[in-house]
Amino acid sequence: MSEVLRKGKAAKAVSYHLIEKTTEEKNTALEKIAQQLEREQDYLVTENQKDLDFGRSNGLSDSILDRMLLNKKRIEDMAHAIRLLIKLKDPIGETLETIEKENGLLIQKKRVPLGVIGMIYEARPNVTIDAATLSLKTGNAVILRGSSSSIHSNKALVSVIHRALEQTAIPQEAVQLIEDTSRETAKELFTLNEYLDVLIPRGGKKLIDTVVRESTVPVLETGAGNCHIYIDESADPTMSERIVLNGKTQRPSVCNAIETILIHEKWLQTSGEKLLQQLHDQSVEIYGDEQIRSIFPKAKPAAEEDWSTEYLALTVSVKSVKDLEEAIHHINKYGTKHSEAILTTNEGNASQFQTRVDAAAVYHNASTRFTDGFEFGYGAEIGISTQKLHARGPMGLPALTSSKHFIYGNGQIRE
Amino acid sequence: MSEVLRKGKAAKAVSYHLIEKTTEEKNTALEKIAQQLEREQDYLVTENQKDLDFGRSNGLSDSILDRMLLNKKRIEDMAHAIRLLIKLKDPIGETLETIEKENGLLIQKKRVPLGVIGMIYEARPNVTIDAATLSLKTGNAVILRGSSSSIHSNKALVSVIHRALEQTAIPQEAVQLIEDTSRETAKELFTLNEYLDVLIPRGGKKLIDTVVRESTVPVLETGAGNCHIYIDESADPTMSERIVLNGKTQRPSVCNAIETILIHEKWLQTSGEKLLQQLHDQSVEIYGDEQIRSIFPKAKPAAEEDWSTEYLALTVSVKSVKDLEEAIHHINKYGTKHSEAILTTNEGNASQFQTRVDAAAVYHNASTRFTDGFEFGYGAEIGISTQKLHARGPMGLPALTSSKHFIYGNGQIRE
Repeated sequence: MSEVLRKGKAAKAVSYHLIEKTTEEKNTALEKIAQQLEREQDYLVTENQKDLDFGRSNGLSDSILDRMLLNKKRIEDMAHAIRLLIKLKDPIGETLETIEKENGLLIQKKRVPLGVIGMIYEARPNVTIDAATLSLKTGNAVILRGSSSSIHSNKALVSVIHRALEQTAIPQEAVQLIEDTSRETAKELFTLNEYLDVLIPRGGKKLIDTVVRESTVPVLETGAGNCHIYIDESADPTMSERIVLNGKTQRPSVCNAIETILIHEKWLQTSGEKLLQQLHDQSVEIYGDEQIRSIFPKAKPAAEEDWSTEYLALTVSVKSVKDLEEAIHHINKYGTKHSEAILTTNEGNASQFQTRVDAAAVYHNASTRFTDGFEFGYGAEIGISTQKLHARGPMGLPALTSSKHFIYGNGQIRE
Repeated sequence: MSEVLRKGKAAKAVSYHLIEKTTEEKNTALEKIAQQLEREQDYLVTENQKDLDFGRSNGLSDSILDRMLLNKKRIEDMAHAIRLLIKLKDPIGETLETIEKENGLLIQKKRVPLGVIGMIYEARPNVTIDAATLSLKTGNAVILRGSSSSIHSNKALVSVIHRALEQTAIPQEAVQLIEDTSRETAKELFTLNEYLDVLIPRGGKKLIDTVVRESTVPVLETGAGNCHIYIDESADPTMSERIVLNGKTQRPSVCNAIETILIHEKWLQTSGEKLLQQLHDQSVEIYGDEQIRSIFPKAKPAAEEDWSTEYLALTVSVKSVKDLEEAIHHINKYGTKHSEAILTTNEGNASQFQTRVDAAAVYHNASTRFTDGFEFGYGAEIGISTQKLHARGPMGLPALTSSKHFIYGNGQIRE
């Protein structure tokens, strides 16, 4: 039996027991994991070093190596995040609906775990801890399939989790790592419908597209963010500069950073040059259409593919539009349904934009950088959903649950 | 451009306008559809007759022909169902969450339409009307792909809808039928991710499995019901007989009818024979394991595949189990996560069963036949979800919606 099949089977079996674990049992296990992470810091740093050495010798970029890095501070942050998770309300068992029928039937719709969650992700070892602890809090078993570049770190983290769970009522099979990181094990997970209830990909667009295309297991699509800011005719110039600079430069490598600025042609005439100069001063590379380049000749010419590119870097594409309609049309054509903003003092235009733009989060006069489970106050985040079914936008604990109808009778039959 | 691509594109375009339609505009359109159906009864019956004639000459069974039939009574029932739908609360625009941040950001999570719904279904022309009207009520565009056996009926129904919409603010492209019913058009819909937000298959297991396996568009899986009743040691014999007979014989062709009875071996000894005899008297064909056959020799021997067969007929498989554990294990192994029941006077066993059996609806002392959107009081039903994401069990109007975060700021940036 393959590793994936064996671990899938074990996860499904254990998932039926996790359903019955109390909030206290789950929180105790989480606290033990936090303690064990703190206790085994040296071991984790040593194992992580193997991945970093290997990565460096294989020419991985500094930014990827930084994402892979585990140090004392980051391990303490993990333990801290787990203690915040412990304080969050356990969603399992919550009654979502109560229906009393005339015939005496009582129907209660309650939150239940999904069952088994499959997580396919790249590089970041913090996803290992996030996915394991959020799954545990919601009574789910989880199967982790990280990338080969972080395999030593992931193995070490999961062994730490196992040593923590050993001291608790939660079986170790609740958290399992697929150690074979060949392409075949990912493919096996895509069609493991018998044992997996959902697959969550976390990583680049290519990974996510592959999972969506090839998986028969239901997928929670996360992440890709080709986000726009539209500066309307009446937008306040000072506010627009602050928000655009924040959206593009505060942390360009994340999915809620902006990639394209759409500027109303009248605003462009009066305030465009100053904004573009400020971006340029902040080392942002600008690709613009003809009108942008006539105002700001340092902009390079934008090609068709720029409108659909998620740069994740200090690069931005800028397009002038003749009105709100054109802006909405452009965003619905090129956007990835993540986060979109309009800057305007015209309330009617703001309302039109927010209603008609198809995205998880639609902003009026604020930076798209707020699309995040913690910023939204969810206290946890397993990813940002860019699909429309089940969960949309930042996914907190409820996204890892399903529901079930409990029906209590005393002999009712259907006439 | 193919029919599917052309209609998909038109549906997506119109979906952005449907978002803005008021409840009144949508309800007016629904009333016009009801009136038009009543007005064009003769035309609908004539067109339906073509499908029936063709089906009969092609040897379709009486039960399929009955499902295909449109007569005056059934058309009036459709109009009546539409008028009930008009009275239901419009879920679009409902505020699901309100978050006020310290920095002054106001975040509101509201219900929005999914966008474009693709419906792939077999035979029943009533699905054409259900899918069209429920989609309209929730501000979604819909693309209907029925089977060739009902093509005349479906074309007639959609033309009636179009003549009704002509009199309203709702564009005709809100409801479109794929007229080419070849296998290729279904396949095209499976991967029409650019224009479809969800695919809902309605029909037999084979159709549903194909859609789940081949579709890259997110699927709402509906339907297959290999439902069980477990009779526990302490179950009341009279109540058990009533519920089992109801579950099996009241309407054997539907997904919430029972297909397997699991009987505690002690109950079997005292009350099994009488129950089995009653089933036999009601013309139910019984397949049993050895213990069942030793009590009731008229039962035929059950094969392994009987435990996973959805008979949808007056046939049942019966197995004796030694305890609750074995019953739960059997159901989680062979069930389709639809509706499962325990009959018992032992509250602890009922609770164990309802917690640990993995299904959309878990019953204590009642017939599984109640799993239905109307019985649950949802007032409408687009199908019964047997998956765990997005919607589980009977799907009413909220299952045809997504959510969106509306964020109102006055210049907030992320620090």
